[in-house]
Amino acid sequence: MQNVLFYQDAVTSHLEGFSKHREPVSLYNPINYILQLGGKRLRPVLTLMTAEAFNADYKLALDAALSIEVFHNFSLVHDDIMDEAPLRRGQETVHEKWDVNTGILSGDAMLIMAYQLFENYEPMVFQALAKLFSKTALEVCEGQQYDVDFETRDDVTIPEYLKMIEYKTAVLVGAAMQMGAIVAKASEEDQKAIYEFGKNLGIAFQLQDDYLDAFGDPKTFGKQVGGDIIENKKTYLYIKAVEFASEDNKLELQHLFSLSPSDPSDKIETAKKIFQSSGAAQVTRQEIENYTNKAFKVLETLNISEDNKDVLRAFGSSLMNRNV
Amino acid sequence: MQNVLFYQDAVTSHLEGFSKHREPVSLYNPINYILQLGGKRLRPVLTLMTAEAFNADYKLALDAALSIEVFHNFSLVHDDIMDEAPLRRGQETVHEKWDVNTGILSGDAMLIMAYQLFENYEPMVFQALAKLFSKTALEVCEGQQYDVDFETRDDVTIPEYLKMIEYKTAVLVGAAMQMGAIVAKASEEDQKAIYEFGKNLGIAFQLQDDYLDAFGDPKTFGKQVGGDIIENKKTYLYIKAVEFASEDNKLELQHLFSLSPSDPSDKIETAKKIFQSSGAAQVTRQEIENYTNKAFKVLETLNISEDNKDVLRAFGSSLMNRNV
Repeated sequence: MQNVLFYQDAVTSHLEGFSKHREPVSLYNPINYILQLGGKRLRPVLTLMTAEAFNADYKLALDAALSIEVFHNFSLVHDDIMDEAPLRRGQETVHEKWDVNTGILSGDAMLIMAYQLFENYEPMVFQALAKLFSKTALEVCEGQQYDVDFETRDDVTIPEYLKMIEYKTAVLVGAAMQMGAIVAKASEEDQKAIYEFGKNLGIAFQLQDDYLDAFGDPKTFGKQVGGDIIENKKTYLYIKAVEFASEDNKLELQHLFSLSPSDPSDKIETAKKIFQSSGAAQVTRQEIENYTNKAFKVLETLNISEDNKDVLRAFGSSLMNRNV
Repeated sequence: MQNVLFYQDAVTSHLEGFSKHREPVSLYNPINYILQLGGKRLRPVLTLMTAEAFNADYKLALDAALSIEVFHNFSLVHDDIMDEAPLRRGQETVHEKWDVNTGILSGDAMLIMAYQLFENYEPMVFQALAKLFSKTALEVCEGQQYDVDFETRDDVTIPEYLKMIEYKTAVLVGAAMQMGAIVAKASEEDQKAIYEFGKNLGIAFQLQDDYLDAFGDPKTFGKQVGGDIIENKKTYLYIKAVEFASEDNKLELQHLFSLSPSDPSDKIETAKKIFQSSGAAQVTRQEIENYTNKAFKVLETLNISEDNKDVLRAFGSSLMNRNV
């Protein structure tokens, strides 16, 4: 197996030429634009890495890896429209640079092109990849819809919240890895196990994202610290704090999360204090560890070399320590 | 083979229960809504009919037929957003009844569900169906984008216009029929031929739609007569009229198509007169006949019984006479 940088380069090279020179340019230019905005390409890297962990050449997995990346970017284009987000990776979003209609139609084309990337695989592998892809893609849509629904509900439970982040972000990580296993012709058990590894790691990563939004180091956390609090997002931290806090603190928190002050610093400070004093911060850290351990435990069951397990474990650890 | 009503009923029955009882309801209710709005189900009927023309049981083709119908409705939901259309089949469009974000996300889910409908077929058939589907779906997106691009161009040529309607509407008719042939394990030649039949019939039908928009009988034409003229749509009639008309008439027509008068009756009258006097109406009728003949000619080459050819020919004729 190679290192992450090697696989990132392989993804970037394979991306070159994808959807280039196609017409109408008004449909394909936005697709090239979003795909060239970069990002860490973590999902496709996981596909390549998993293929090699199961002793296949990563080159066999390049199309499947690219499919995952194209799908991920499709979902960003449509989500950014729904969120009215002006920026993505520091650059204009597609619907800002062009318009909403272009974002809708170019996104649709990307979803179809993601399926087309399976076409070079033989029929059995093609069907396995496409079935996993469809199941996962539909869950991502459902997760996005749950997220939208939760915005106007104040009775979201922890199991509901966990299901939302599982669908919205974690299943794609699991599917990215399982696709590598499918291409490598791994057994059904191994496929299931590596999917669970990716999914649980994905949940842990998202919960950590919730945690770092409040308690992360502004220097190393990629986004604005306190962003979720400013936007009144009911994250794991918030739901747990409402559950655990004293009646007074609970009411104060709920009140705070109905406001949008122009200077949010006091709001952020108070919310963080309640997240800590209620025990929500502590429980969230515990839950991140639980899901990380769950992921690493399932790794033990895989029929791959100890060396390859070490590589996957190291990648998981560095992901949770946010070194990649 | 059975008659059209029989196949329509089969499609409607198969549609029952599709996407019912799925969660979140906020994602799936709009999908059930648009699928229950009705319509003539012509595309899925063609899939079933073609399967039987190649001596397979139509039941084998039900999932493929439904996939075509789900895709068609996906494209309606997203197109209606782009066109800001308030009504579809006399009822509120999805983005009107809910909102734009719901329309985008429910549409995305429908596109994925259309692929899932192939999953019960064995791997070889699955791959053939999914490949044809992806190619066709991408062409539909490209056709839609050409249509958008043409709105702001005044130099659209007849070949460009024909390619646009081929992609936007005709290829899906061809694909619907080829899918029936794929399921029936027809030869590659027969698959290609039935695709060409459907595609050419689709082009003829769309050109006829352009023609009837100006010259149709308000009592039998489903839409508002003159609608394209009111909306300044550069249809086949318009492009040909600009090509053929005298300089005076050409300038008058181009000027008319830059206006949006509150009472459009004079505008419609004048445009129709120029369509006639320039010879554009005549040429359009000729082109409709050319494509219809092309479709019927390719039917001759099919390796199916003369009886079954007669059924397909009769369906094509009744479609062009707008009896179905």
